[in-house]
Amino acid sequence: MKLAYQGEPGAYSEAAARAYGGSSIETLPCKAFDDVFAAVADQRATHGVLPLENSIGGTIHRNYDLLVEHDLPITGEIELDVVHCLQALPGTRLSDVTVVYSHPQALAQCEKYLKGLGVTVEAIYDTAGGAKLVAEQKLTGAAALASRRAAEVFGLEVLQEAVQDYEFNITRFAIIGGTPAAGANKTTLVFALPSTPGALFKALSVFALREINLSKLESRPLRGRPWEYLFYIEVDARSDEPACAEAIAQLGDFAQMLRVLGTYKGAERRWAK
Amino acid sequence: MKLAYQGEPGAYSEAAARAYGGSSIETLPCKAFDDVFAAVADQRATHGVLPLENSIGGTIHRNYDLLVEHDLPITGEIELDVVHCLQALPGTRLSDVTVVYSHPQALAQCEKYLKGLGVTVEAIYDTAGGAKLVAEQKLTGAAALASRRAAEVFGLEVLQEAVQDYEFNITRFAIIGGTPAAGANKTTLVFALPSTPGALFKALSVFALREINLSKLESRPLRGRPWEYLFYIEVDARSDEPACAEAIAQLGDFAQMLRVLGTYKGAERRWAK
Repeated sequence: MKLAYQGEPGAYSEAAARAYGGSSIETLPCKAFDDVFAAVADQRATHGVLPLENSIGGTIHRNYDLLVEHDLPITGEIELDVVHCLQALPGTRLSDVTVVYSHPQALAQCEKYLKGLGVTVEAIYDTAGGAKLVAEQKLTGAAALASRRAAEVFGLEVLQEAVQDYEFNITRFAIIGGTPAAGANKTTLVFALPSTPGALFKALSVFALREINLSKLESRPLRGRPWEYLFYIEVDARSDEPACAEAIAQLGDFAQMLRVLGTYKGAERRWAK
Repeated sequence: MKLAYQGEPGAYSEAAARAYGGSSIETLPCKAFDDVFAAVADQRATHGVLPLENSIGGTIHRNYDLLVEHDLPITGEIELDVVHCLQALPGTRLSDVTVVYSHPQALAQCEKYLKGLGVTVEAIYDTAGGAKLVAEQKLTGAAALASRRAAEVFGLEVLQEAVQDYEFNITRFAIIGGTPAAGANKTTLVFALPSTPGALFKALSVFALREINLSKLESRPLRGRPWEYLFYIEVDARSDEPACAEAIAQLGDFAQMLRVLGTYKGAERRWAK
C-alpha cells in the first residue's frame, strides 16, 4: 500500500494514512488535494487520503467537489484526533514567540489560545509546512502549530502540547482508490434535484421511510446554475443491502443526477457521548 | 442609513450596500466580518451587509457562524452580479502581468482564466485590498482581480473585464440590523436536533407537509460535539404566516435549540432559468 496525502511529512493527513494502513505502508506527500487524486489515477500511489470534515472547523468542501470531478471511489474512512503542538527552534521560550505559522483551519481551532498569547498569526498552506518554514529558515521568535510528529521531522521543540480551544478535535478522512475493506456499512452519494418545492424532502424520505439513517448532508453549488445545488449524503447502510439499493433506485427515478461515490466500512468513532 | 461592510472601498460588499440602500447612503468599511457585527451593535452603523453565498464558490460559512454568535436579526437580502476586472497600474500591458492579487474566492472564480494567462496568484484578504496594494505599492508586473469601482477608487486601469470562468456569478448578501422592509416573504432559522435517526427528515417535514418551500439548507459543526450539527434553513414564507408559525412551533417541540434569525423580503433574483 502506498497512500498519497496533501501536505509535508508530519501533516495530519500522513498520520491518518498510517492509522488506516498501518506503520509499514509507504506514503507520498502531495502539494495540493488535486495532486492526491492525480497520484492515485496515475498509479504513483495505491490510495489517497483526504480530509472531509473536522469536528470544529467543519467540512472541507473542496474535497467533496473533487470527489465528483474525479472517478475514484471512496473505499474507506478513518477518524483522527488532532493534537496541535506549538513548536519552535530549540531553546525558544514561549515569551519569545511573536508570530505563529499554520494552516488557517488550525489557526481557527486555536483562536482563543493564540489571542491569549498575544501573537500575530500567519496562514500557510499546511500545518507541517509551517514547521518546515520555521526550521529551514531558522526563524527566531516564530513558532508553528502542527503535530508532534512534525516537530520530530523538522527538529523543532514542542513548547506546549494540545493547545486547541476544544477538547474534542477530530478530523474524518476518506480513503480513495483500491477496493473497499470487508464490512462495508456506509455509503456516500451525490445527487442533483429538480428545482421543485419539496424535492430535498422527497429525496431524504426515500431513506427515512426505510429507516436508513443519514449521518451527513452537505450541499455545494451547481456551477452555472445559481441557487441550485449538488447534495452529498452519507447513509449508514451498504449500497447493495436491499433496502438501500431500493432507496437509491427510487432516488434515481427523480434525481437529475445521481452517483454512488463509494460504499465502505465507516471509521471507528473517536468520540461517543 | 449607514451600512457597515467588510473590505476596502470598491469591495463587492460596498456595491451590495449601495444596491440595497441607494446611492445616498453612507458606508463604513470594516477589516473583518466580526467588525461588521460590532459596528452595528455599537451603533456606528445602522445596518451591516454580509455575503452569505456565491453561486460559484458556495456558502460563506463564517457568516452563518457569526449570525448565531450575535443577536442582530437579518432584515433584508440583496443579490449582486460579480464582474471581476483584471486591473493594473496605468500603462501596464496584459503581457507584463506576472502576478495577480485577489481574495481566494475571486481567484477560484477565475481559475481557468488565470491558468490561461500563466500568472502566479497571491491570496489577499479582500478583492479591493488587492487593488489597493497594487496602487499604493506601485507594483509593476502585478494586477488585481476586483470590481470596476475598485479600479476607479485606486486609480488602476482595467485590462480585461468580466474574466470570471462562469457567466452567472452572483453573490447573495444578508442585511443585518434595523427593521425589516415591508413585504417580508422569507425566513431564516437555525436549529440543533437530537441525534436520533430520521431527525433531519422530521425537521424538514414540518415545512414540507405545509407546502412551505425550503430554498437553502446548510449545516455547521456544533463545537465540542463531534458529528452533530447546527442546521440553517431558509424557507419561502414570513415567520408569522399561520402555516409557517405552526411549522416553527412544531419544530421547536423536538429541536434541541431553535432560533429565528430573521424574517424579511427576499432579494430580487438576478438569474432565472
